[in-house]
Amino acid sequence: MDIVEQKKQVGKYAASLVEDKMTVGLGTGSTVKFFVDALAERVKNEGLDIIGVTTSNRTAEQATSLGIKIVDLDAVENIDLTIDGADRVNQQLDGIKGGGAALLFEKIVAINSKQNIWIVDETKLADPLGGFPLPVEVVTYGVGHLIELFAKADLHPVLRKDAAGETVVTDNGNYIIDLHLDQIENPVELADWLAQQVGVIEHGLFINIANHVIVAGEEIKVLDRKN
Amino acid sequence: MDIVEQKKQVGKYAASLVEDKMTVGLGTGSTVKFFVDALAERVKNEGLDIIGVTTSNRTAEQATSLGIKIVDLDAVENIDLTIDGADRVNQQLDGIKGGGAALLFEKIVAINSKQNIWIVDETKLADPLGGFPLPVEVVTYGVGHLIELFAKADLHPVLRKDAAGETVVTDNGNYIIDLHLDQIENPVELADWLAQQVGVIEHGLFINIANHVIVAGEEIKVLDRKN
Repeated sequence: MDIVEQKKQVGKYAASLVEDKMTVGLGTGSTVKFFVDALAERVKNEGLDIIGVTTSNRTAEQATSLGIKIVDLDAVENIDLTIDGADRVNQQLDGIKGGGAALLFEKIVAINSKQNIWIVDETKLADPLGGFPLPVEVVTYGVGHLIELFAKADLHPVLRKDAAGETVVTDNGNYIIDLHLDQIENPVELADWLAQQVGVIEHGLFINIANHVIVAGEEIKVLDRKN
Repeated sequence: MDIVEQKKQVGKYAASLVEDKMTVGLGTGSTVKFFVDALAERVKNEGLDIIGVTTSNRTAEQATSLGIKIVDLDAVENIDLTIDGADRVNQQLDGIKGGGAALLFEKIVAINSKQNIWIVDETKLADPLGGFPLPVEVVTYGVGHLIELFAKADLHPVLRKDAAGETVVTDNGNYIIDLHLDQIENPVELADWLAQQVGVIEHGLFINIANHVIVAGEEIKVLDRKN
């Protein structure tokens, strides 16, 4: 089974966890795209009655085009279940997210969800966390000085650009600085430090958020948070 | 001497502290407006050669119209001296800022300044800090849930609206939640907590930032940071 087929399968598995009348958080990413496809199938074929809340314009467009009703986060009391991807996950189920530049909305949806499940493939498992740039969403004003501060703190910052060399602007109008760290030995400490810096809006360390992680592969594996 | 005259005088005093060839941070507020007027006078009359960096579109427009050269923060190595207002200041020279909704840019300019001086009138002195709503700049997405969280934490949040009843949007496209607290006994602890909350971009507690505070009155008083 190739990786695309595995991602499809895990997306379908995640869609099977959604129950009638749920408010569902729909994440962003290549595996989540297959989940949204599979969820739309269930809405169409089974008449599943759900409401979706999305973490990016991209997912909102996909879901709406497939007939899933999307509402604003502030229109719902809370979210029953959010299915999202992750760029790296460690054994504690803490992760790095935001490779797709949607980390801010993803985190806001996550903390307003009763339950969070991440769907990933095996290449995303990393303990300690690392091997993937840690995205930090920042205010555009004075970004050069913030990059300098991160460089002095040995965080190897790079302002994210797109393929055309243009600085990436998030759905919320901010920039992304990617921190190129080989290994993050203490994610909690780094998350605290980043949160304290002026100009930092949010960072891609998701600590204590995922309840379960579903790993694609020849066979699907489900990891559960222990604490 | 009425309060307007006192504010003018303190603005003029602050302008006298600016030296030739300085990069000067220009804050936002009613007293700072008089400072910018007085600084422009010096540029015109004495040929003072300075560059300004501003904390709001409002101040940028005023300064430019008066002939002060304004550049982007990222165009300068750092700022020599920033003159700004404050809504409340305690005896440690920590303060509440952001009544004018420019707290984010004010804080970014402040932390990139070698020296920060606040100009206030006597009504702004308060120990402990309080008697003025503490502004928190927040992401618009999911703001209702953030207000709920603040309410549960007994922080008495109110989403800021303008006179016409429209929600205020900052220069950076965000909302302001004002926390109506009588007294802030431990500003450092509250600042830390606010910085950790997802959706909070920045808050109006300015801790360990002002080097001096100049107080308007019948006679001008200068307060110096002790540590």
